Amino acid sequence: MAIQHSSGLSLIFRLELENSNTTFGKLASIIGEAGGDIIAVDVISVAKDTVIRDITVTVLDREHGRNLSKALDSTPGIRVINVSDRTFLMHLGGKIEVTPKIRIKNRDELSRVYTPHVARVCEAIHEDPYKAFKLTIKRNTVAVVSDGTAVLGLGDIGPHAAMPVMEGKAMLFKQFGGVDAFPICLDTKDPDEIVRIVKAIAPAFGGINLEDISSPRCFEIEERLKEELDIPVFHDDQHGTAVVLLASLMNAAKLVGKRLEDLKVVVVGIGAAGVACTKMIMLAGCKNVIGVDRDGILTRTKTYERPIWQWYAENTNPENIQGTLDDAIKGADVFIGVSGPGVLTVDHLKKMAKDPIVFAMANPVPEIAPEVAEPYVRVMATGRSDYPNQINNVLVFPGVFKGALECRARTINEEMKLAAAKAIASVVSDDELHESYIIPSVFNKKVAESVAKAVKQAAYETGVARRGLHKKGDSSAEKNNF
Amino acid sequence: MAIQHSSGLSLIFRLELENSNTTFGKLASIIGEAGGDIIAVDVISVAKDTVIRDITVTVLDREHGRNLSKALDSTPGIRVINVSDRTFLMHLGGKIEVTPKIRIKNRDELSRVYTPHVARVCEAIHEDPYKAFKLTIKRNTVAVVSDGTAVLGLGDIGPHAAMPVMEGKAMLFKQFGGVDAFPICLDTKDPDEIVRIVKAIAPAFGGINLEDISSPRCFEIEERLKEELDIPVFHDDQHGTAVVLLASLMNAAKLVGKRLEDLKVVVVGIGAAGVACTKMIMLAGCKNVIGVDRDGILTRTKTYERPIWQWYAENTNPENIQGTLDDAIKGADVFIGVSGPGVLTVDHLKKMAKDPIVFAMANPVPEIAPEVAEPYVRVMATGRSDYPNQINNVLVFPGVFKGALECRARTINEEMKLAAAKAIASVVSDDELHESYIIPSVFNKKVAESVAKAVKQAAYETGVARRGLHKKGDSSAEKNNF
Repeated sequence: MAIQHSSGLSLIFRLELENSNTTFGKLASIIGEAGGDIIAVDVISVAKDTVIRDITVTVLDREHGRNLSKALDSTPGIRVINVSDRTFLMHLGGKIEVTPKIRIKNRDELSRVYTPHVARVCEAIHEDPYKAFKLTIKRNTVAVVSDGTAVLGLGDIGPHAAMPVMEGKAMLFKQFGGVDAFPICLDTKDPDEIVRIVKAIAPAFGGINLEDISSPRCFEIEERLKEELDIPVFHDDQHGTAVVLLASLMNAAKLVGKRLEDLKVVVVGIGAAGVACTKMIMLAGCKNVIGVDRDGILTRTKTYERPIWQWYAENTNPENIQGTLDDAIKGADVFIGVSGPGVLTVDHLKKMAKDPIVFAMANPVPEIAPEVAEPYVRVMATGRSDYPNQINNVLVFPGVFKGALECRARTINEEMKLAAAKAIASVVSDDELHESYIIPSVFNKKVAESVAKAVKQAAYETGVARRGLHKKGDSSAEKNNF
Repeated sequence: MAIQHSSGLSLIFRLELENSNTTFGKLASIIGEAGGDIIAVDVISVAKDTVIRDITVTVLDREHGRNLSKALDSTPGIRVINVSDRTFLMHLGGKIEVTPKIRIKNRDELSRVYTPHVARVCEAIHEDPYKAFKLTIKRNTVAVVSDGTAVLGLGDIGPHAAMPVMEGKAMLFKQFGGVDAFPICLDTKDPDEIVRIVKAIAPAFGGINLEDISSPRCFEIEERLKEELDIPVFHDDQHGTAVVLLASLMNAAKLVGKRLEDLKVVVVGIGAAGVACTKMIMLAGCKNVIGVDRDGILTRTKTYERPIWQWYAENTNPENIQGTLDDAIKGADVFIGVSGPGVLTVDHLKKMAKDPIVFAMANPVPEIAPEVAEPYVRVMATGRSDYPNQINNVLVFPGVFKGALECRARTINEEMKLAAAKAIASVVSDDELHESYIIPSVFNKKVAESVAKAVKQAAYETGVARRGLHKKGDSSAEKNNF
């Protein structure tokens, strides 16, 4: 059951039932016998001899749903009109819309938001392009850019199929951070082309959130865009994950009474997220970090073809440990997994130091199931919403961009990310801190506010915030903005 | 006063007034003496000795506003805190936002719109990319694409300064057509690059509205995109103008009792819009169209460097008239101006046939002022909202895209544009038809509905509509969408 997500698959069966022949009790018993759970019942219409009902049922998977549909359809007095998946219904026609902030009520307003008077606003921006931050959506809008090459655990499914994720992301940006975000799914995989396109579309945006772009292309694309654009560029799969992981690690370490400086940390899965997590926790103070991938422990005595592995070997593993995860895990305080299911075993856990901390973030199936690990670990976190301590980027990106946009930051630097991690961690007070509560819920409204505030302050302190610093002409230009 | 737009410049003066010293009557008389019209008065706050008021005043122009500000500030007992332009206030932070269609209330919903369950929706689109029209915003979303090279009458002001227009357009798309539109302002002028970028970002969109791209680049860009994309591409400056002009011409001709086939039409200004208007009215039946530009009447006895002039010379002017506008206008039934102020004179009007019809569409100042032309014309229309018969693209693009998106059209063809023009014309009934009412108001709610319906029907008739025609697998796939 560890693999099955708790909310299962929720189907709506639209059924035509003969009044004379089919009681609701009979219907309920057929569904119950087939292993389905009835969640809701709605009457759609009633005719003389028949009634049409929508029955919402939770089933285990699609196969289970199909079998139930067949069982219903073959019962006398019941006809299946159609079956719909609640998840699909939520996606019909897309999940976001573009709405005017004001409704145009008359010609006078039309002439202000559009021709002819809009021309004055255009001219003001033409004279001083920085005014775009004040007079256009650039002030509060982020592009969610993907090429669809590394979407969730699905891999390279292309730009059309990536859209539902990017639209979901845009929803979260708005609901949690008040940030407007629009999905840009690119029908190209060429890094040069992607860099050119993002630069070309940048005028409308105050920030760029890169998403689900496969490694190592994501490194080059992010680095070049950061260099060539004067608005924040943030690859969420790397940095969002790293920030929330660090927040969790800070609280977990506090709980077990250890300092980051003293931790022995093993990271398994040295891809984009693994490297970002490592850099982040080292920036926060961790010194003894050991990376493990298919080749075993990354060590400076070997050379690696992949540039990031080479970087990793040169900058981690200070004691120059050799071997495999079996060797690395001995006496480790912390395990960080961004790899795949089954990587971590109970034997590994038994070899760890006292009060083991385990972040098993592989999605959707963690490196070890929490129920299996529970007897052997002190603190455990996963990427999943159906266990305690969910390491979820939703805690990061809305607040980080909200803060960066509010102060018109040129970039999102390490100090801002560190500030974001501390802000997330601080939402859980010392009184509340507990093995099953090291990280706040994604629905905790304090999170985005705290993160935005901390990020903004760090931006001003490090000199990348522009708001309030830019002035064109003398102060009377501020007094008379027309 | 023909140049001054009727709604003038509306400023809000925030004033601190000393209670003891300044009566409202005194304030009103200062503003009145300076030639300003008070529109509204609001009290912002009252202190012991002072009151802060917002006074909304209409002035002639920015200079007039500055003088009034100085007059107020130099009056004892009055201090100008700031002055703001109502138009600028409407643009603060941009005019559109990206909003979720549903608010995520709990973890179950979060797991459906985002990970893990969104993966099922992604997989469904990966298996059948056409499902993007059903399960993503592609169903109802248009990109408003500009490179900022020909914005309003302002010319090449660049992508940042073009944004307020494109955002305004997005507002109109939603308010009038229910269509979601997002501005894409490109920081490149290279046609190859623009074509590549628009193709690359197309997965999110069900249509592309090109806007304010300078001629002749706009022709190449539109043509290549139409060929290479399977969604509608519509350059509104050309086709939107052409459709609404044709609608107006149909009704004007009906009013004066002439048939399109019999009209002698003179078009001045053979750029993108002039050519599109000419093609449109010829498609609708006009036979005798004569084009005039800087070189005079375009005629097949000359050759032209500009490809569109050459096309024009070869396909119009059947009587092979030579000379200038003075020659062309003799006996003409219709004048269509997409040129500049002052091109048309009373002398010209006097040479026209009985019941002259004049479309003076230069913006913001028409080819001849309506008050000057009035005694000599039967029907007159301009691009302006402060005279009767406004030729406004807002009548076209919301309905055209609404119709095209609803039937998932591959393109917007000539038949669909013709249908749109007829639909707009038909909103004005024969009973209502009048010299000052040949074209419906932009606020007439019937317009977009009628246009969408007509466009959709034409799309089905010409075989470019896809909705309802596409089926993957057998009918049981429709019955079970999970």
